[in-house]
Amino acid sequence: MIELGGYYSANNRCQFRVWAPRASRVELRVVGAKEQIRALESSGGGYFDVQVDNISPGTLYLYRLDGSRDRPDPASRFQPQGVHGPSQVIDPSFAWADRNWLGLPLKDYVVYELHVGTFTVTGTFDAVSAHLEELKDLGITVIELMPVAQFPGSRNWGYDGVYPFAVQESYGGPLGLKRLVNACHEIGLAVILDVVYNHLGPEGNYFAEFGPYFTDRYKTPWGPAMNFDGPDSDPVRRYLIDNALYWISEFHIDALRLDAVHAILDHSPYTFLEQLADEVHAQAKLLNRQVWLIPESAANDSRLVRGRELGGYGLDAQWNDDFHHALRGVMTGEKSGYYEDYGEFHQLVKAYREGFVYSGEYSKYRRRRHGISSRDIPAERLVVFSQNHDQVGNRMLGERLPQLVSFEDLKLAAGAVILSPFIPMLFMGEEYGEPAPFQYFVSHGDANLIAAVRNGRRNEFAAFAWRGEPPDPQDEKTFLRSKLNHNLKHDGRFHALWEFYRELIRLRKKLAPLACLSKEKCEIHGFESERILVLRRWFKDQEIISIFNFNAAQVSLDLPFSGECWRKVLASTDERWAGAGSQLPPMLDVVRAVTLSLPGRSFVVYRKEFENSSAQMFS
Amino acid sequence: MIELGGYYSANNRCQFRVWAPRASRVELRVVGAKEQIRALESSGGGYFDVQVDNISPGTLYLYRLDGSRDRPDPASRFQPQGVHGPSQVIDPSFAWADRNWLGLPLKDYVVYELHVGTFTVTGTFDAVSAHLEELKDLGITVIELMPVAQFPGSRNWGYDGVYPFAVQESYGGPLGLKRLVNACHEIGLAVILDVVYNHLGPEGNYFAEFGPYFTDRYKTPWGPAMNFDGPDSDPVRRYLIDNALYWISEFHIDALRLDAVHAILDHSPYTFLEQLADEVHAQAKLLNRQVWLIPESAANDSRLVRGRELGGYGLDAQWNDDFHHALRGVMTGEKSGYYEDYGEFHQLVKAYREGFVYSGEYSKYRRRRHGISSRDIPAERLVVFSQNHDQVGNRMLGERLPQLVSFEDLKLAAGAVILSPFIPMLFMGEEYGEPAPFQYFVSHGDANLIAAVRNGRRNEFAAFAWRGEPPDPQDEKTFLRSKLNHNLKHDGRFHALWEFYRELIRLRKKLAPLACLSKEKCEIHGFESERILVLRRWFKDQEIISIFNFNAAQVSLDLPFSGECWRKVLASTDERWAGAGSQLPPMLDVVRAVTLSLPGRSFVVYRKEFENSSAQMFS
Repeated sequence: MIELGGYYSANNRCQFRVWAPRASRVELRVVGAKEQIRALESSGGGYFDVQVDNISPGTLYLYRLDGSRDRPDPASRFQPQGVHGPSQVIDPSFAWADRNWLGLPLKDYVVYELHVGTFTVTGTFDAVSAHLEELKDLGITVIELMPVAQFPGSRNWGYDGVYPFAVQESYGGPLGLKRLVNACHEIGLAVILDVVYNHLGPEGNYFAEFGPYFTDRYKTPWGPAMNFDGPDSDPVRRYLIDNALYWISEFHIDALRLDAVHAILDHSPYTFLEQLADEVHAQAKLLNRQVWLIPESAANDSRLVRGRELGGYGLDAQWNDDFHHALRGVMTGEKSGYYEDYGEFHQLVKAYREGFVYSGEYSKYRRRRHGISSRDIPAERLVVFSQNHDQVGNRMLGERLPQLVSFEDLKLAAGAVILSPFIPMLFMGEEYGEPAPFQYFVSHGDANLIAAVRNGRRNEFAAFAWRGEPPDPQDEKTFLRSKLNHNLKHDGRFHALWEFYRELIRLRKKLAPLACLSKEKCEIHGFESERILVLRRWFKDQEIISIFNFNAAQVSLDLPFSGECWRKVLASTDERWAGAGSQLPPMLDVVRAVTLSLPGRSFVVYRKEFENSSAQMFS
Repeated sequence: MIELGGYYSANNRCQFRVWAPRASRVELRVVGAKEQIRALESSGGGYFDVQVDNISPGTLYLYRLDGSRDRPDPASRFQPQGVHGPSQVIDPSFAWADRNWLGLPLKDYVVYELHVGTFTVTGTFDAVSAHLEELKDLGITVIELMPVAQFPGSRNWGYDGVYPFAVQESYGGPLGLKRLVNACHEIGLAVILDVVYNHLGPEGNYFAEFGPYFTDRYKTPWGPAMNFDGPDSDPVRRYLIDNALYWISEFHIDALRLDAVHAILDHSPYTFLEQLADEVHAQAKLLNRQVWLIPESAANDSRLVRGRELGGYGLDAQWNDDFHHALRGVMTGEKSGYYEDYGEFHQLVKAYREGFVYSGEYSKYRRRRHGISSRDIPAERLVVFSQNHDQVGNRMLGERLPQLVSFEDLKLAAGAVILSPFIPMLFMGEEYGEPAPFQYFVSHGDANLIAAVRNGRRNEFAAFAWRGEPPDPQDEKTFLRSKLNHNLKHDGRFHALWEFYRELIRLRKKLAPLACLSKEKCEIHGFESERILVLRRWFKDQEIISIFNFNAAQVSLDLPFSGECWRKVLASTDERWAGAGSQLPPMLDVVRAVTLSLPGRSFVVYRKEFENSSAQMFS
């Protein structure tokens, strides 16, 4: 189906196909013992093809452009010797054991973002597999892999990936990824893959020699913008959309997280993202699987996840950074960088009510009005989190939340995310309060690039020079320092936090009002001066009330309802979660109003037992 | 209401307001006998204000930036000494005589595009007024003025306008324009003004000294792109939207033609065009007038004119260049430049059926797939034409259609446009077959710019060098050569053509099936091999059939319906229209089928008299 690259069918037959309109001549050079040169034939539209027999899987090859330059295949499926080396022919067949796997509906997603290289000591897909049972036990339903496309060296977040079809060799290559996905599906976990369609990494990038993959009409922060709407943009789109279809079809990936789609600069009337949504959804239908596209976007553009019939792009769910910033702003009072725009309690309330905090308001940080309303966007189309790779790793020192706030705050953040009506996402290690940083690291081979990255990082944090230099991204120690310490989670507070996360996720799944992701069935009360947030969620005759106190001090609150009897489900201060112990009543028999006294930085969950005959709401 | 610029209220009181975030100090310098300097005060957001008494209308002024540079007001209402000179305070009051004017519905628009400088010998608004009765007599309901914002010198198409609020002084300035609009409304004509929001002209452009009006994140073919979505873009949008509101409110303009909106580069979730549509329509409601926004766009993006509730931008109607190109391609067989993509008969059929010819098909000229479907766009939201300033003037020699095709072809083109279910537009002089060219002309003051424009023009037509050099744009003779010769229209074939246009417009208004702009009530039959197009339009029990023969030879056609009796309304070959005389039967009594013999390059219109009892359609 995906016909770009070296497409191995069977019986040592391989079809090679490359888009190279800038070359007048393209040859296949088979590298190694059976060294040979074969001419590709132009088949129109800038494409070149050849079918070769006696090519066994594992064969290494390069394309020779215009008789002189030998380059890896832009659609290489494997780069066993790195970004500058030859490409390898891969047999796509695999002994899949997931024939009955149908994917998961978005509403059941509980996402765990992980970076393969730092998740374990060995940093491979196989090493990830060893943790799947534990993640499942925690309640996770989906793991999200940071990008795995081949990048320079062996240490990279993944956003410098340059061969979008080639699975990073140091992680275990394509076979390793298939084994991991297969293992996930076997125990009922879905897999999201983070893919980067807004740019290609700088090192090992020979694409411009093949064709106009890039345009100079727009700029991105990371290098030349991809050509989505200019002359010869159709094959560029084809290339990237085939990439999406490749992950879904050949690797059984369940969803794609689309990196920074605000940097997909495209003024065409049928945008790349619409085409991607249409083709991926059509393919999912054919495969009879639930497949989702989940953009990350800084644009606060609800059009992304609105349906095609309403003029939207038809993507399925998007990251809501505003939720994170509003929560973090209220919890930490941080004001540097983009946090300048956050910190007001009413912003957190709006994040729960609507999704986007900035829906047209003026942003000081952006120096313009920002966003449009997401009021009509269903809760299950928004992904929320208190940490992720960016929010941790883009700090100068890459501190995770435990380095910045108290233990009670960690539990508060966990509750705020998991008890929300949105899709929750955890960043690896968050579940037990991993103290290691997640820092920015690379392992480029190009000295100029290494210097540029170092300087870029230094300039970015020039305002924090009084705190010292940022860690050297190229230094292996920066990478090693960022690895998880899984052994911590078995003891003490780490273990209590882990259990707390597990209990919250369990409640989210078990209690119907929490499992039902609906803004309509979630009433939000914000008490600005007390800094208390009340989420009242219901499903049929069941009701759950979660009361969050973001105040550092103990606060008394007159409950905004009466005539009901409530039973305590959980309090973050319970001793069981290494808290000071909760004084909150196990039962609330609210004949009229009742005043609750909430410890600072804590939350409590009550479940409605029954309604008194005199029940009535007041606000 | 519009508060930018020198806003004269009454009693010699004037409020000055300018957005100049790049200046740390702004002063008002009154120029002339009462020379004085007044400091403006910063009022936040980069705005500076001052209210001054004893300023009479006519006062000349400049802004002094940072105590050194004297510049015209970016929101100048008048530049009596040109783009480099001082701005003038204008009294906005005017003795309007159009109090009962409500505007016209789009479906009644019959548009006449004109360029003020070349429409008459004197080239002023007042000189245009002298022709209004004649245009009304022709059947025109709306005149469309090419841009009138102050440009360098006295000769320009208008797209080099640099002060969007200042009416070109050589045309008669703001008072002249108001007199013209008033005169139009008095006799029932509406006025469309062409406005340019995608760039500002190069000469006399001091805007970057005031603030970040421009961005370097995008490029346009005509210079720096306007800043619609970057930091500090809110005031840039405010400035341009206030410009739209200014024309509508202060000049009583009925509609704005938005120049080349595909070059309004904007990735924000609430685009400039949506904001413009929202604010202009709200203002129209307040004014209780019908006001329309009519973009020109090369993008074939139906989202522009789709309603906001369906995710569209909510603009009202758009130019459909595809109709022109398809018609021209079929008529002339031209294949150079963008005509490479046209010339197929089925494309013309599609233009009538759907609107856009390119709705996702591959365009050779653009080297990519182009456009999305306009099938759901109502006919009254598409403007069609067989000539316009661009299609004439962007040819090397600026030839109008009469220099390229036969007299019979001119009538065929007229019928194809006016009998279509879309909004028809004529380009000045088209109605009598003006033989003068409409060439590209400028009158810049900057020697480098003059040379650049000359070279640009020469390079553009390098492929036609065998035909000689393009006319020198800066040469006044190029401008003079482009003026209309109105006296021609009273005699001979010119007159016959004029009368023919008048008759077609009269029929379009009088015959209900032609007046009803509906794709649903218009059945299109295309006969590919005969090159015959049949438009069957109906309204209630009335029916009109127009049969166009684009074949150079006489062609016989079996009419695709029977059981009806038809009366001839008009044939383009009738002697009355200086034709060879029509052999077509005055009555068609179609018991079964009937074969009609149509002269080459002609059309005929029949009107249904009654239906036989055995009536039935077959296709």
